[in-house]
Amino acid sequence: MALSKTANVIKLGGRVMDDELELNALLKAISLWQHPCIIIHGGGEQVSKLSKDLGLKPQFIDGRRVTDKASLELVIMILAGLINKTLVAKLQANGANAFGLSGVDANLLLSEKRGIEKHDFGFVGDMKWVNVSVLINMLDSGLLPVLAPITHNGSGQLLNTNADTVAYEVAKSMANVCDYQVSLYYCMDLPGVCESVENPQSLIEELDLRGYQDLRTQGKIHQGMLVKLENCFNAIESGVNKVVISNAQNIAKALVNEPHKATTIQLKEAVN
Amino acid sequence: MALSKTANVIKLGGRVMDDELELNALLKAISLWQHPCIIIHGGGEQVSKLSKDLGLKPQFIDGRRVTDKASLELVIMILAGLINKTLVAKLQANGANAFGLSGVDANLLLSEKRGIEKHDFGFVGDMKWVNVSVLINMLDSGLLPVLAPITHNGSGQLLNTNADTVAYEVAKSMANVCDYQVSLYYCMDLPGVCESVENPQSLIEELDLRGYQDLRTQGKIHQGMLVKLENCFNAIESGVNKVVISNAQNIAKALVNEPHKATTIQLKEAVN
Repeated sequence: MALSKTANVIKLGGRVMDDELELNALLKAISLWQHPCIIIHGGGEQVSKLSKDLGLKPQFIDGRRVTDKASLELVIMILAGLINKTLVAKLQANGANAFGLSGVDANLLLSEKRGIEKHDFGFVGDMKWVNVSVLINMLDSGLLPVLAPITHNGSGQLLNTNADTVAYEVAKSMANVCDYQVSLYYCMDLPGVCESVENPQSLIEELDLRGYQDLRTQGKIHQGMLVKLENCFNAIESGVNKVVISNAQNIAKALVNEPHKATTIQLKEAVN
Repeated sequence: MALSKTANVIKLGGRVMDDELELNALLKAISLWQHPCIIIHGGGEQVSKLSKDLGLKPQFIDGRRVTDKASLELVIMILAGLINKTLVAKLQANGANAFGLSGVDANLLLSEKRGIEKHDFGFVGDMKWVNVSVLINMLDSGLLPVLAPITHNGSGQLLNTNADTVAYEVAKSMANVCDYQVSLYYCMDLPGVCESVENPQSLIEELDLRGYQDLRTQGKIHQGMLVKLENCFNAIESGVNKVVISNAQNIAKALVNEPHKATTIQLKEAVN
């Protein structure tokens, strides 16, 4: 059987987005390009800052941003504009042929505006479809796609979509539609999932579904982490090979096969 | 002799950027895709507005924006972010497979920071090179490139570059390097170059180099128009087939071969 191609899908988020030194180190590791990579980035802190400078008040429900028209414009400006192009410039300077895009470009990420049930999240898009051939063509041309999590509904409306979810959907499509061996990396502030958020020493190095469900039942998974972990387990169930959750420093090491700390989630080999 | 391919390079600017109805009509005409198109857009008014909302004061020298660090960030946010993605979403809704990018993406537009001679324009990039194969590959894949005039120096620095100049450099490279038959359209508020700015009836339908020099000597070309016309005549000299200057309404008509008003510049056929 021919080995399928491999790819890393890397979600950048957390403090690293505002830490020049750490960010540069991580981008350098990505630029070494041990495997083709696709980056998805957030940038929530910078959106909140500009929002505040303009006298707007960001609102959250259950850890998810409420996106009114003015907020949507800020999100597009910061994510698809400033952060996306800054990352691409840094990667280009490192010799990686990065290409920044958002979900509207080449119709990459189609979504629909979230319906109003319990809460109205405003201009938020729930993913419908990843036009994964766009990404495959870019990888085949030696390009490094850098994705801002802005999606569209196909009728001219841009929508704000959770970056963790976009990363999961992209990884899933690469694995399912294109038969890639995909590793999905979630970069955040902690070195992984910890028994206690206050104690990084309580890192859980390997997490399986039962372990996750136990932690959840015990109320040890905080709100923001719930979405991420749901995405992680959905990814594994959908054919993604491995999910690695850690901070920027450790993910940089993982990408170049150096010893590192992280929470790794992968399907257990079936016992004969 | 085989006929070479044709392409339209269209610079969007002026009031149309803030006029939903006119913009939609122009984008619809572009989406009919009579010939492959490349769009370059400005968006100066929106940059000034956000700048003002944030309490910054935009500065201009000789009609050119001075770009300090804060202004550069705003320019990137508005041009590469909000305006670029809004245009792409509208084009996608019209059925055109638009793909927004800036000059840093895939190393498309390489520039260098303008040296300080008479004035310091800040983070302004003077064009060095267009990686035109990126655009040709996109056109060959049926994509419609939408360019924000943000360039980079290859060492991680993003730079603000005049959109008229980017349009000229792109048209020139398409014509020279790739042997395309290129028409370059400059969209602005007036229906073309007029003898008197106050009187649109004084439109000059055909302009040649001598006519332009005469107008200039008579002081009839205002500052902002000087850069545009320099680019127009440079384009013709560099192998671009035709330059058309007009407002959005007339350019929409020109693109679908309807009667229209405009200033057209093209090389005169040599007299036998």
